[in-house]
Amino acid sequence: MKTSQRLLKIPTSPIRKLTPYAQQAKAAGVNVYHLNIGDPDTLTPEPMLEVLHAWKQNPITYAHSQGHQPFLNALKMYYHHLGHSFVETQDIQITTGASEAISFALFATCEANDEVLVFEPFYSNYQVYASLHHVKLVPIPTELRTGFHLPDEKTIASYITPKTRAILICTPNNPTGTVLTAEEMTRLVAICKQHQLFLLSDEAYREFTYDNKKQTSLLSFMQEIPELAILIDSMSKRYNLCGARLGMLVSLNQSLLQGILQIAQGRLSSGLIDQTMAAALNQLPLDYLEQMKNEYQQRRDVLYAGLKQIPGLVVTKPEGAFYFIAQLPVADAEDFCRWLLTDFRDQNETIMLTPAAGFYATPGLGKSEVRIAYVLKCEHLKRCVQLLQRAIHLYNEQTYVMSEIASEM
Amino acid sequence: MKTSQRLLKIPTSPIRKLTPYAQQAKAAGVNVYHLNIGDPDTLTPEPMLEVLHAWKQNPITYAHSQGHQPFLNALKMYYHHLGHSFVETQDIQITTGASEAISFALFATCEANDEVLVFEPFYSNYQVYASLHHVKLVPIPTELRTGFHLPDEKTIASYITPKTRAILICTPNNPTGTVLTAEEMTRLVAICKQHQLFLLSDEAYREFTYDNKKQTSLLSFMQEIPELAILIDSMSKRYNLCGARLGMLVSLNQSLLQGILQIAQGRLSSGLIDQTMAAALNQLPLDYLEQMKNEYQQRRDVLYAGLKQIPGLVVTKPEGAFYFIAQLPVADAEDFCRWLLTDFRDQNETIMLTPAAGFYATPGLGKSEVRIAYVLKCEHLKRCVQLLQRAIHLYNEQTYVMSEIASEM
Repeated sequence: MKTSQRLLKIPTSPIRKLTPYAQQAKAAGVNVYHLNIGDPDTLTPEPMLEVLHAWKQNPITYAHSQGHQPFLNALKMYYHHLGHSFVETQDIQITTGASEAISFALFATCEANDEVLVFEPFYSNYQVYASLHHVKLVPIPTELRTGFHLPDEKTIASYITPKTRAILICTPNNPTGTVLTAEEMTRLVAICKQHQLFLLSDEAYREFTYDNKKQTSLLSFMQEIPELAILIDSMSKRYNLCGARLGMLVSLNQSLLQGILQIAQGRLSSGLIDQTMAAALNQLPLDYLEQMKNEYQQRRDVLYAGLKQIPGLVVTKPEGAFYFIAQLPVADAEDFCRWLLTDFRDQNETIMLTPAAGFYATPGLGKSEVRIAYVLKCEHLKRCVQLLQRAIHLYNEQTYVMSEIASEM
Repeated sequence: MKTSQRLLKIPTSPIRKLTPYAQQAKAAGVNVYHLNIGDPDTLTPEPMLEVLHAWKQNPITYAHSQGHQPFLNALKMYYHHLGHSFVETQDIQITTGASEAISFALFATCEANDEVLVFEPFYSNYQVYASLHHVKLVPIPTELRTGFHLPDEKTIASYITPKTRAILICTPNNPTGTVLTAEEMTRLVAICKQHQLFLLSDEAYREFTYDNKKQTSLLSFMQEIPELAILIDSMSKRYNLCGARLGMLVSLNQSLLQGILQIAQGRLSSGLIDQTMAAALNQLPLDYLEQMKNEYQQRRDVLYAGLKQIPGLVVTKPEGAFYFIAQLPVADAEDFCRWLLTDFRDQNETIMLTPAAGFYATPGLGKSEVRIAYVLKCEHLKRCVQLLQRAIHLYNEQTYVMSEIASEM
């Protein structure tokens, strides 16, 4: 009884499980390009940092459990600017990262052993919170060749059982980069309405959509299904505040919000400094998010063009967020990713990728796939493509030699 | 199905449930003295605020999931200064507030429906995390007249069932102010060893012990029961960092820590700014915590002397932390606390207290009791005593008149 049995069922993060190998490589002086984690090198806006430089409040007290009022006010304005003028501060619960919003949402909508539908591949941390709250994620497959878009209504409905409580989506998607169309969102809303399922929409990457595509937010349907719609949101990617641990849960279901507030009171508050800093979002230039999007679109274009040149690599052009799922010409992408960190060196440099199998719940799926985050400057991404191409070539050559040796033994 | 059934079982925070009444009073221009919440008016140390003023790192990236290395290093030094030189950074998991440490500890030690022994009254937020993780808190009564010290070994052992997994203590105690003696700690360690129970010790108020008493930490026994001992710790009270949301979980049980790290990876990291700021703890004067303790001892003395003068009020002198449990000469302390906020005014001032019933799991207990936090300056505490005395007198007079009227009807 060294721990509870249920602790042993928490899955390992595919994004971080290879971190010890990366640390070893770096300790040996190797330059590791991190394409494994969505922790961008773009900058936190200056007006936010100025809040730190000008900090006066002493002592640093708890914030209100629902959220720090100036931050709530700023978020209300943000949603109004997006065209969702029905959102009031009372509809918003500040969370310590979108992670906490996911945790709250799963607990608040499901009993133990209930089921939540997710489209596979999906963001791996959903599985951590599902395990914590004894919720079963039921994967509905989507495919690389169709850009990971949704199956038809009938197929989706065929996964619904008496235990199904919710559908959990992410748009723009981590890890696939897919942006659900207005028609797909309408389809999901109709299914949820018909079967009385909650619809949980993680929209951390809302503004990062390319080629003039626009994201269709769950907010556009919130008044149609006020009891069922739960928006999960995040400050991390939009404002380069990953380390500030701020997310939001938005809903018009007041009894759900009231229950969640009681959990929120149990953890007292989210960080006061982070919230005060983030409230400066309403001091940013109006085109701030447009600029961010343009930067990521450039990065996507550079990386996509490069990856298309690598023989045997299969990828579709992502429509949003800052991730690709790429199928590599290797049998075991996790072995390859580990080898990149332990063995492969080119001018003392290598890259770190995330094996994609961890984004699938169905065993065996995604074995040849990796998730690539385009969170680095274009010049670095070009170098990463070069490194990846050389690595695949070398890895397959060595594997071929090894299997030749094995077959002669 | 507006929410899950289990959401409805999350208890309301007794510390915050009267907050709307306080907000209304303040909106009407009334000055409310907050003795309800452990959010002190003492100052966050300057070297920590200077970290904010000199902030350079941009962007604000995720920290490591286990914790930010400079902060881990500073904590290791802190524990070494306390005399526990066996503690290594690998034994420490940084948490987003001690709240998260409590959550991790309960999940990591218990299956659903397992039992954890707590001494009643106990910190109410334990109940929130127990509900979240489907753990049953089994209360063992302690009493005001014996200073809320522990019952004997046989009595404690009589509460152990095949479902018991852990004993959860808090020393110095919130809400009672009790500091467990070395003998009591030894007793608990012996019980846990014999029955193979985890011992979870919340020591957020470690240094706040008065009259030359010293706290005996679980750290002193950690090498004796390395698999079973889990320390829950916090930066909030010690360094006036309530709003920085930083706690720690310390253990020598490496498989437990490894499992907890996987949950921690799921929530990515605690706040980078808060951790960087808190790492400045090793730049503070050596007598910083001694000074803090002296300040609270003065406050306790002022409040205790004042409360003793109030007819019918029963209180024992607290040995540590910054809370009292006081029994008031009123039948329903929650009604009285609400009335303080809605009706009672003295020179347009009133006080906010926490009804203590929420710190008991046994229905009906603590109905006449309140928790009083001595987190204000001595001059304010003197005024609070005056307000409380006048309020009790007036409340009982009114209640008497009301019951007279009722009996004549």
